[in-house]
Amino acid sequence: MKLASLKGGRDGRLVVVSNDLAWFADAGAIAPTLQAALDDWTRVEPLLRGLAESLEHGAVPRERFHEHDAASPLPRAYQWADGSAYVNHVALVRKARAADMPESFWTDPLMYQGGSDGFLAPRDPIPLKDEAWGCDMEAEVAVVTGDVPMGATREEALDAIRLVMLVNDVSLRNLIPAELAKNFGFFQSKPASAFSPVAVTPDALGEAWKDGKLSGALEVELNGKPLGRADAGVDMTFDFGTLIAHAAKTRALGAGSIVGSGTVSNRGPDGGPGKPVDQGGVGYSCLAELRTVETLAHGAASTPFLKHGDVVRIEMRDGRRHTVFGAIEQEVRPA
Amino acid sequence: MKLASLKGGRDGRLVVVSNDLAWFADAGAIAPTLQAALDDWTRVEPLLRGLAESLEHGAVPRERFHEHDAASPLPRAYQWADGSAYVNHVALVRKARAADMPESFWTDPLMYQGGSDGFLAPRDPIPLKDEAWGCDMEAEVAVVTGDVPMGATREEALDAIRLVMLVNDVSLRNLIPAELAKNFGFFQSKPASAFSPVAVTPDALGEAWKDGKLSGALEVELNGKPLGRADAGVDMTFDFGTLIAHAAKTRALGAGSIVGSGTVSNRGPDGGPGKPVDQGGVGYSCLAELRTVETLAHGAASTPFLKHGDVVRIEMRDGRRHTVFGAIEQEVRPA
Repeated sequence: MKLASLKGGRDGRLVVVSNDLAWFADAGAIAPTLQAALDDWTRVEPLLRGLAESLEHGAVPRERFHEHDAASPLPRAYQWADGSAYVNHVALVRKARAADMPESFWTDPLMYQGGSDGFLAPRDPIPLKDEAWGCDMEAEVAVVTGDVPMGATREEALDAIRLVMLVNDVSLRNLIPAELAKNFGFFQSKPASAFSPVAVTPDALGEAWKDGKLSGALEVELNGKPLGRADAGVDMTFDFGTLIAHAAKTRALGAGSIVGSGTVSNRGPDGGPGKPVDQGGVGYSCLAELRTVETLAHGAASTPFLKHGDVVRIEMRDGRRHTVFGAIEQEVRPA
Repeated sequence: MKLASLKGGRDGRLVVVSNDLAWFADAGAIAPTLQAALDDWTRVEPLLRGLAESLEHGAVPRERFHEHDAASPLPRAYQWADGSAYVNHVALVRKARAADMPESFWTDPLMYQGGSDGFLAPRDPIPLKDEAWGCDMEAEVAVVTGDVPMGATREEALDAIRLVMLVNDVSLRNLIPAELAKNFGFFQSKPASAFSPVAVTPDALGEAWKDGKLSGALEVELNGKPLGRADAGVDMTFDFGTLIAHAAKTRALGAGSIVGSGTVSNRGPDGGPGKPVDQGGVGYSCLAELRTVETLAHGAASTPFLKHGDVVRIEMRDGRRHTVFGAIEQEVRPA
């Protein structure tokens, strides 16, 4: 089952989307918003699934689905916890600045508390006041949970996963060092993120969803040129069950909590950072990683961070090259 | 005007509370929840104010208000950003561990992104799985905002303050060092917080609300004994307008965002950390500060962190000793 929130009001309007993303059926009679559906999932899920089946059969009124009309599936959420599950990415970035990475990073997930009071729509511009802030995309996978009790096990956490989607976790790289030096984590350096037009239930992902990981190439483009094709199912040190259990260690998580994977990143065949796409590699899911590779190779980064007018695109396709979640496509614009 | 959310459902039931906290009138016909009211404040506020006036005059059906029946005013929220505006507190804690505090801490607010998907009710127990985690209270003031545009000035931010309340920002002190060492800020070390039974509009605070600060002794008790009486209006380096503007530098804040002051802390008359209440001082709003003072004086802390069965109480009274926000009173219990 695929769900989306059409723009409108603060929380959008819940619709069921056909598997090929061509059509939608209004789900307002079942639940007005995705958050309302998640709040009452046990009752609502079978009704939504019934509607989705009818939509596939053309047995209900339907309209054309346009990704441009979609807000992020949860236009605002109560929880956005972003992990850093591709430890390869962390190790690489640290290597470039000659910083050791503690061994514990391979066993104890890194996670930061994100802000969730307003997300960008997947085709909305990224408002950037100052290019000097060093704006970067981070292409990631994220899940939406139901209620997760405090102290949940990995298995309980996996059972609580309701939906899977993609995210562009916008980061202001040049604000990060000073902010992290204050030792309270990210705040100004992590402005609003954007999620894919469509959120998908794990069962609808078929073989691509297994053991709490999503497999498939995460296609990242900058200004129409491929930047990354890393497989989200490869080199993910912590699966989503582990990430959710980490988040729920000392507190319950409410229905509608979003948990992110961190920037998707694959090692090269030699165990190193891997090559850019145009050199036959799978490339990178953020500019910081490319800049790190440039720094390691040439002593300095040559690719700049995002400037006004740059366009970022993030998408995943299935085996038949059909889009799974729709595309995040955002132009950086002056705020 | 005073507002509360009676327990019920995920978001409670909005009521208007009389100034003396004795009575409430159901506000469901105006807005079902406080978040719904904040989402549509321009339309809703005058209606709620009319109801509040009628309640004071006994002109509407009313029922007894019991603080035990109240959830936190926003039982869950989209944004919880906690500042550290009493820089005295930060300087003191750093001094105890012989760490320098950067000069910039006096001009650039410290703020961490908190989790907001579920808050404890003000009289609910604090669920603590492991006493070794070092559970502490932090008595603070917090405000609820309307919509704040990206890049808002301090003055615009002050205009966006809708409500004022108290908060117990529960902290797990012994999880903090390892978590901060990972450099991604707090996550597991900041479990669910609890807010005062009642949230109050700034105008209803009279002289106590001025220039974005709340004046008055923040009464903190541990097991019935006074721990702190620090004045929230004293030694607050950053007022709420400055804190909100800091939070909104790179992104807009949605209606219903909660911004906290950080632990309230006053210097002693000599500029030092000040004395405990039983030695004639204003004491401390968290155990960590008391333990810091003990460490500075005797080389080691003697007061333990909270144990199962301990009871924390946080309240503020007006000039006539009447409670302003109601009391947060929480027993620590095994999870």
